[in-house]
Amino acid sequence: MIVVLKNGVSKARQDQLIEWFKSMDLGVHVSVGESSTVLGLIGDTTKVDLELVESLDIVDSAKRVSERFKRCNRKFHPEDTVVEVGDVKIGAGNFAMIAGPCSVESEEQIITVARAVKASGAQILRGGAFKPRTSPYDFQGLGGEGIKLLLAAKKDTGLPIVTEIMSAADLPLFEEVDILQVGARNMQNFDLLKELGTIDKPILLKRGLANTLQELLMSAEYIMASGNERVILCERGIRTYSDYTRNTLDLAAVPMLHELTHLPVIVDPSHATGIARLVPPMSLAAAAAGADGLIIEVHNDPMHALCDGAQSLRPEEFDALARKVTAVREALK
Amino acid sequence: MIVVLKNGVSKARQDQLIEWFKSMDLGVHVSVGESSTVLGLIGDTTKVDLELVESLDIVDSAKRVSERFKRCNRKFHPEDTVVEVGDVKIGAGNFAMIAGPCSVESEEQIITVARAVKASGAQILRGGAFKPRTSPYDFQGLGGEGIKLLLAAKKDTGLPIVTEIMSAADLPLFEEVDILQVGARNMQNFDLLKELGTIDKPILLKRGLANTLQELLMSAEYIMASGNERVILCERGIRTYSDYTRNTLDLAAVPMLHELTHLPVIVDPSHATGIARLVPPMSLAAAAAGADGLIIEVHNDPMHALCDGAQSLRPEEFDALARKVTAVREALK
Amino acid sequence: MIVVLKNGVSKARQDQLIEWFKSMDLGVHVSVGESSTVLGLIGDTTKVDLELVESLDIVDSAKRVSERFKRCNRKFHPEDTVVEVGDVKIGAGNFAMIAGPCSVESEEQIITVARAVKASGAQILRGGAFKPRTSPYDFQGLGGEGIKLLLAAKKDTGLPIVTEIMSAADLPLFEEVDILQVGARNMQNFDLLKELGTIDKPILLKRGLANTLQELLMSAEYIMASGNERVILCERGIRTYSDYTRNTLDLAAVPMLHELTHLPVIVDPSHATGIARLVPPMSLAAAAAGADGLIIEVHNDPMHALCDGAQSLRPEEFDALARKVTAVREALK
Amino acid sequence: MIVVLKNGVSKARQDQLIEWFKSMDLGVHVSVGESSTVLGLIGDTTKVDLELVESLDIVDSAKRVSERFKRCNRKFHPEDTVVEVGDVKIGAGNFAMIAGPCSVESEEQIITVARAVKASGAQILRGGAFKPRTSPYDFQGLGGEGIKLLLAAKKDTGLPIVTEIMSAADLPLFEEVDILQVGARNMQNFDLLKELGTIDKPILLKRGLANTLQELLMSAEYIMASGNERVILCERGIRTYSDYTRNTLDLAAVPMLHELTHLPVIVDPSHATGIARLVPPMSLAAAAAGADGLIIEVHNDPMHALCDGAQSLRPEEFDALARKVTAVREALK
Repeated sequence: MIVVLKNGVSKARQDQLIEWFKSMDLGVHVSVGESSTVLGLIGDTTKVDLELVESLDIVDSAKRVSERFKRCNRKFHPEDTVVEVGDVKIGAGNFAMIAGPCSVESEEQIITVARAVKASGAQILRGGAFKPRTSPYDFQGLGGEGIKLLLAAKKDTGLPIVTEIMSAADLPLFEEVDILQVGARNMQNFDLLKELGTIDKPILLKRGLANTLQELLMSAEYIMASGNERVILCERGIRTYSDYTRNTLDLAAVPMLHELTHLPVIVDPSHATGIARLVPPMSLAAAAAGADGLIIEVHNDPMHALCDGAQSLRPEEFDALARKVTAVREALK
Repeated sequence: MIVVLKNGVSKARQDQLIEWFKSMDLGVHVSVGESSTVLGLIGDTTKVDLELVESLDIVDSAKRVSERFKRCNRKFHPEDTVVEVGDVKIGAGNFAMIAGPCSVESEEQIITVARAVKASGAQILRGGAFKPRTSPYDFQGLGGEGIKLLLAAKKDTGLPIVTEIMSAADLPLFEEVDILQVGARNMQNFDLLKELGTIDKPILLKRGLANTLQELLMSAEYIMASGNERVILCERGIRTYSDYTRNTLDLAAVPMLHELTHLPVIVDPSHATGIARLVPPMSLAAAAAGADGLIIEVHNDPMHALCDGAQSLRPEEFDALARKVTAVREALK
Repeated sequence: MIVVLKNGVSKARQDQLIEWFKSMDLGVHVSVGESSTVLGLIGDTTKVDLELVESLDIVDSAKRVSERFKRCNRKFHPEDTVVEVGDVKIGAGNFAMIAGPCSVESEEQIITVARAVKASGAQILRGGAFKPRTSPYDFQGLGGEGIKLLLAAKKDTGLPIVTEIMSAADLPLFEEVDILQVGARNMQNFDLLKELGTIDKPILLKRGLANTLQELLMSAEYIMASGNERVILCERGIRTYSDYTRNTLDLAAVPMLHELTHLPVIVDPSHATGIARLVPPMSLAAAAAGADGLIIEVHNDPMHALCDGAQSLRPEEFDALARKVTAVREALK
Repeated sequence: MIVVLKNGVSKARQDQLIEWFKSMDLGVHVSVGESSTVLGLIGDTTKVDLELVESLDIVDSAKRVSERFKRCNRKFHPEDTVVEVGDVKIGAGNFAMIAGPCSVESEEQIITVARAVKASGAQILRGGAFKPRTSPYDFQGLGGEGIKLLLAAKKDTGLPIVTEIMSAADLPLFEEVDILQVGARNMQNFDLLKELGTIDKPILLKRGLANTLQELLMSAEYIMASGNERVILCERGIRTYSDYTRNTLDLAAVPMLHELTHLPVIVDPSHATGIARLVPPMSLAAAAAGADGLIIEVHNDPMHALCDGAQSLRPEEFDALARKVTAVREALK
């Protein structure tokens, strides 16, 4: 950590600060410049509170030189992590197509969609059983019953399943679930992250609506520091002033995360845009930007054709998209 | 809800949509205009998914006429809610000054600060026992031990206490806590909100970093719909592009929330700015804008004078501020 | 326009509002619902101030049904516009690769880069002569002299040139420039836009840092309403809380703009990210998302190899990228 | 400037970088730490491009120690600047109340409003003659004719006037205007700023919708570096995801700007919120936060009572507000 002192700081106060750093087992390298004095902290500065240091009245500014994330840091693990679930691999060139309905509604629905997306090349089935909803009056998902239906679809198609967990208290219901998803709203539900660090299943961790990449990685670090290293990151759009899409898909996060971490990075264009007709171009863009996979909402609901325009694709739209994604990936090999 | 159809929609598809609404027990009033047809939905539209409707390919746009929050809606409860805790009242002209350290560290610390802030007029003591931290390597708070220290300070000073709860599993530890705080990161931890709706204590609900007022009110609604109507809202800054303060304090939220809801609204200038010297002007501004209270970080740490510049005020600074806040409130009576 | 009145508005005030709308030559269709009255305005509502209407104390909410942009609106011009400059076409499947240095520095520099990017397939040369800089102490560009150097490069290579204009007073210097660029900071410099509407050259209009697509289109409308219909839109990143890239590239704007307008839409990944190594993946993503072209910074500066890491690509990097862009576009045909 | 090099950078490349800095007449202080090497640049680094340095592939990060703004920097001018216009003083404890209609519409209107706001204690009259409008089809203001009407109101009441200038070409029309306003959309119209630096009138510079305080100060610096030191800064709300007000008023900018600069800082609550009933609480908050003045929209339009709810206050509302602002300021003396 580099700490720049303000001009005209007294020697006494400067020494007091240096002593404080030393009391944290840090070495301090003092560099006196023309207009300011700079302290270089040597040692494990991960425990130093940057905001506290910056707020000291004798400090002009401070800057971390080393990142605070260790286990997910590419510097310490240069090789890409490959997360395996059944026969499916994600990361290091292995691209995973994950698809399925927003909510699990019935056995017929989930099995129909599962068969359809499998036929189009999807390797993992998604479906919401526990649904985080802004309003308490909205449909909250089928819960444990929804998971049973997902497992029925898994049995039918052989596809591994991923579904969201909202509370550690529900963990027993997820015993046969292949991948547990942490939603954007729970990205910093640290108690949940710690619990998920103790289990032996891959975790799909979605970026929060207003979280930095650094914060996303620190949340991955919570899981990994608790013992579970199988984390898949997911960019799903951030909240900005821009209002024509539900969120703003931040695709540059894909190559940037690949630089910072060895964990696989997938993209959710359905939630990012909230508009079905934007899902194909954003899926192709994500593939071109180097994503390790896509998670896409697909529904099959001939009875309610009204939903056609929602953020979910119809199976035939998903099929066409899957082909194009493959074509883009082939072109860039 | 008002639904505007696109130009040139076929009669058949329009009728299909109308049937769908009717199947939800809604009346549909069709108004055919020159360039577009507008449907007015009559009845309980709280269960209609606005985003789904907007995304239908035959719909140009849709708009809710009635808000989805009921229990916290001023329309249905015109009178201000007064939340009482011990002898302290919050709301309807009752202003609450809440103060205390960021983290509870020791019995001596918390009692010293509690006595100091009480002497300056604070009516409620705050202090962090369970701390949500971005990094798993940061100090996570003293947990249950911290709550015991807070209770010792309560016993010593008579001040009711407020502290953050991060997981419903910890509820037994909060039995003697007066007000339970839900932090910004957990504002949409719906399982936690539901649990807090079943207890008989006031809940201090902080606005999430990137949440709208509508979402804040829907989260209050989660608590209230589960049976607990004693909710205090707290504006604590939102995340924006602006980087000189930790967050951007959105003070217009105070009068706006007062218009939308009958619940009391307080302001946290310490977390909003992250800079101690901005806490006094922002506290005065909050009081002038009509806030029902302030929650301010105060520390008393002669041994670590280094922290002086942090977001916490020293007791003497808090004392001076409390006088000015009173002066502003008097001036506006 | 749909105007929803508040509950309990008196007949007198409602009639007063209706008269006001009628005084603007609008028809008013009144629809009385169970809990609210809705007015449908018929006629040319482009001149009705939506914000004013929304702010009336008897109005609950208001919503425009028809867009306010006319000339750039795809509804009224379903066919893609193709902007031609020399032999180069942009739009309707014609993809333009625009490349060149951030600033024009010397004749040798600009000609070297121009030859290099032409050899790699660029069809248009970019280069800054008038530079908008945050600080008055930064290099402001070579101005008119820079334009002369660009024209020398044009003569040498045959490439048409695009460069930024910051003030209408400079127009005489741009007589031989092929495309005039309006930078993000001037997107709502309406006096400049009006002037550019009177000339007979294509205008490359960049989206402002915090502007909506609606505002971008209204700025295009300023140019078109003044008589110049040759406008090329450019997405170049928006300002968000996210800080690891200079801006957040909003790629969903590409398909969304294609839906709203017939004008061509290109992408500037260099300014959007500010980081050279993110330019290739974001260029490929833009091509996959359906952009009509790219504008990329390329420098050739063996003397100052230090700049290698900046947002500019080296010619050999640009060459490799151009091949991949072509491959992605081929794959998606 | 502090430059932190990446680990493992070769001596040759490091020396090359150092030579480059030295070629800019900078001293370079090298500090070799355990895990990184830090360069301290000594001398005038205002011309060093921070973003360029940060983007070099051998650089981990860089940080400016000294601000780039000089003339508006409080470090070099510790005393508050007082801007005088006629008998009115702004800054250093002198509070200016500026009020008037959004647009100048007629002589009767502007004189009526001017007399009313003067009676309530306003010291300066505002009114729009040249109006920046998002749409080319919206009313663009009366232009030069509007300025004549403002001057008539000035003659009638003795109030100095402030009105917006959008193009340097219009300067001759502003000869008798007392204060020239630069609107938010033109905050980085650098050619306009340079021109305004050559005239002898105070400039009211509004913060752009998405601009940092640093950028606002650099724009003030453009005016001051060109010779005009009479700049008044104005916070008028920033664009965020939050959508219940037109913009988010960033009141913490007031004390923060007072720390960074000696220039006066006023607040525009009318444009910040866009909602008349939020103007009083935000005006009081601004006064409590230490603003040097307010600029408030007031209209007097008995014929169009419909506008009552707009962002403009009625004269009687302004009168009540002015009294309260005075009360708050008295309370804080």
